Amino acid sequence: KTHVDCVTSRRIVKLPGLIDVHVHVREPGATHKEDWASCTAAALAGGVTLICAMPNTQPPTVDLDALTLTKELANRGSRCDFAVFLGASTNNHATVAELAPRAAALKMYLNQTFTTLRLHDTTVWLKHLESWPAHLPVCVHAEGQTTAAALMMAHLAGRPIHVCHVALKEEVLLIRSAKEKGMAVTCEVCPHHLFLTSEDLDHLGLKGEVRPKLASPADQQALWDNLDIIDCFATDHAPHTIEEKKSMQPPPGFPGLETMLPLLLTAVTQGKLSMEDLVNKLHHNPRRIFHLPRQPRTYIEVDLDAQWTIPEAPPFSKAQWTPFAGRKVTGRVQRVVLRGEVAYVDGQVLVPPGFGEDVRETQPLSPLPTPGQVAAPPAFPTQPQYSAPT
Amino acid sequence: KTHVDCVTSRRIVKLPGLIDVHVHVREPGATHKEDWASCTAAALAGGVTLICAMPNTQPPTVDLDALTLTKELANRGSRCDFAVFLGASTNNHATVAELAPRAAALKMYLNQTFTTLRLHDTTVWLKHLESWPAHLPVCVHAEGQTTAAALMMAHLAGRPIHVCHVALKEEVLLIRSAKEKGMAVTCEVCPHHLFLTSEDLDHLGLKGEVRPKLASPADQQALWDNLDIIDCFATDHAPHTIEEKKSMQPPPGFPGLETMLPLLLTAVTQGKLSMEDLVNKLHHNPRRIFHLPRQPRTYIEVDLDAQWTIPEAPPFSKAQWTPFAGRKVTGRVQRVVLRGEVAYVDGQVLVPPGFGEDVRETQPLSPLPTPGQVAAPPAFPTQPQYSAPT
Ligand SMILES: [Zn+2]
Ligand SMILES: [Zn+2]
Ligand SMILES: [Zn+2]
Ligand SMILES: [Zn+2]
Ligand SMILES: [Zn+2]
Ligand SMILES: [Zn+2]
Ligand SMILES: [Zn+2]
Ligand SMILES: [Zn+2]
Repeated sequence: KTHVDCVTSRRIVKLPGLIDVHVHVREPGATHKEDWASCTAAALAGGVTLICAMPNTQPPTVDLDALTLTKELANRGSRCDFAVFLGASTNNHATVAELAPRAAALKMYLNQTFTTLRLHDTTVWLKHLESWPAHLPVCVHAEGQTTAAALMMAHLAGRPIHVCHVALKEEVLLIRSAKEKGMAVTCEVCPHHLFLTSEDLDHLGLKGEVRPKLASPADQQALWDNLDIIDCFATDHAPHTIEEKKSMQPPPGFPGLETMLPLLLTAVTQGKLSMEDLVNKLHHNPRRIFHLPRQPRTYIEVDLDAQWTIPEAPPFSKAQWTPFAGRKVTGRVQRVVLRGEVAYVDGQVLVPPGFGEDVRETQPLSPLPTPGQVAAPPAFPTQPQYSAPT
Repeated sequence: KTHVDCVTSRRIVKLPGLIDVHVHVREPGATHKEDWASCTAAALAGGVTLICAMPNTQPPTVDLDALTLTKELANRGSRCDFAVFLGASTNNHATVAELAPRAAALKMYLNQTFTTLRLHDTTVWLKHLESWPAHLPVCVHAEGQTTAAALMMAHLAGRPIHVCHVALKEEVLLIRSAKEKGMAVTCEVCPHHLFLTSEDLDHLGLKGEVRPKLASPADQQALWDNLDIIDCFATDHAPHTIEEKKSMQPPPGFPGLETMLPLLLTAVTQGKLSMEDLVNKLHHNPRRIFHLPRQPRTYIEVDLDAQWTIPEAPPFSKAQWTPFAGRKVTGRVQRVVLRGEVAYVDGQVLVPPGFGEDVRETQPLSPLPTPGQVAAPPAFPTQPQYSAPT
């Protein structure tokens, strides 16, 4: 299955373009942290050809005006394909639901984090869960017992729910129980919760602030032990500048697009993860859960044997820092082909801002479920469908 | 149905002995606040012939030793019949479950309140919900979104759950939705949330601290508007001395046993509540949900027309204060007959400490469900079964 480069004897594999369903682009509103051009350059450098952009921008993406603005900026700036989240507010459940087919999904913030969109009242959660089309995804930031509360409200609404960035043993065991009970819940895990713990705060200091917080080694182990019920990997790429992160009250969040795949490939090399599982969690499952279209003539080529050290400042994100600096990894993105164009090769991004397409506009969703869009995703990931490397 | 006293022309009704499923007796550990003798004198004065005593005593009732101690003190001190709660701790799920047939129910504290028993981790909740016999009740202190989380965990465990002291519109709407969905959830409401709001903090000051807090007038109205899905009234009688309540950091809680029935009878007089509903929520539903036995030859006589003003300090509780002081009420307990004995008449408690019986010892529960003990209580209260006044 693997192409061996005769000159260097390195194993090169071809994978489908990766999909990151949890990215904070920061534009509009905070382009000193990141913008569409820099964020999607980082995405391509990380093997990601399609991102779903979170709505906690300034203005937040909670209505038609903000959605239109964000889509204009994205169309002008994005180098890879994308879809844009809508955000749930206390009073927009009726109006956002009408925009659902044009959005990646609905995001509800149920705990305190880097946003103005926090929803306190479960009555409001229920309104959103009932208004948003049942065959289109709703994603929640919901930590600890809030995960259980969110699952209850989705159950009452009779609809699926996607739990962002699972970090605690408590959360992953809850989602396991819910899946075993047949509930329509899916979830994602971030690389920083798989590869860092609260013990890394020793050297990260205040830069280690992130939501959900870095958790205990036991929590980390529980994520690895329950990979079978985790549907997606997602970066929660949340860039802040190194100056902001070095301040006394640093905003929570890590950049992640340029480091996710090398970290996960290293886990594959170490036998902690199969390549099939990696492709399921970064391509097939995100496509299924978010109803994302196939990107034609799109793939990435990965050098499985390249060994390198993550630098202090990965080159493309404006964040100019990473919590993984100094970590030795095995595996590197060599080439990214997006819709037939070489978008990235050997450290160079070759496609300009504006090359990316809004997949919800080029391949519109139906406001009503179609046979291809099941309301309840399977409780457990389907069998591995990974194949087709050259 | 009503006996009219010929001399005074007052309407006297006979009701079954009332059951209060939520009482903090304070003994062992804080007998300067209340003890079994004073608490149950207050109960009888309020028409209550059976109380369920909460486990957040000192020591907390979390193991056989503490249960034995509490039962000894109760047998010696109680003037009315009783059952004793066990409390869930982070590590006692296996051992308390074995004691279940001897307890009123299991109590889990899921939010911060006046206890050392708070449980943070939903994994621990689930262990208790799975270990405690499914046909015996589990009660939760769970406010706001924690109510939804608790319902989720009970759903995963496939067992009924009873929600204590519902106070918010959010909570009562959630429970309505869950009942409409057929979930096995029951709940109680306290008089102070029915008859006081945050606006009363004007005159109550810090004495008004209670958990759940006094809520908004809109929350209060939601309780009245949704009385049909509320299963029980319960006092959450939580006495602290007036000196403690006047301190700068007063402990949360109100006494309630001596004032509950007069307040509710006043609501009956005002047409806000039917007498049938009152008897369902203070006798039939508590008996059904908690599997409490019939108390033979037990009833109370109530003067529906007596008008009086709640005093600064109702006579029997050691609390010696009430948040309802000065309120004009209509309806008074005239006589209480408990197992054939006149236990209270016209302001005098006639039975001594030790008269009360532990209904879980005199009429033991089965550790396994029997035909009379259904696992899932009906989602909505059964038809009114009130009748039989003289
Ligand atoms: Zn709330
Ligand atoms: Zn989040
Ligand atoms: Zn995020
Ligand atoms: Zn595929
Ligand atoms: Zn927790
Ligand atoms: Zn409580
Ligand atoms: Zn209580
Ligand atoms: Zn009866």
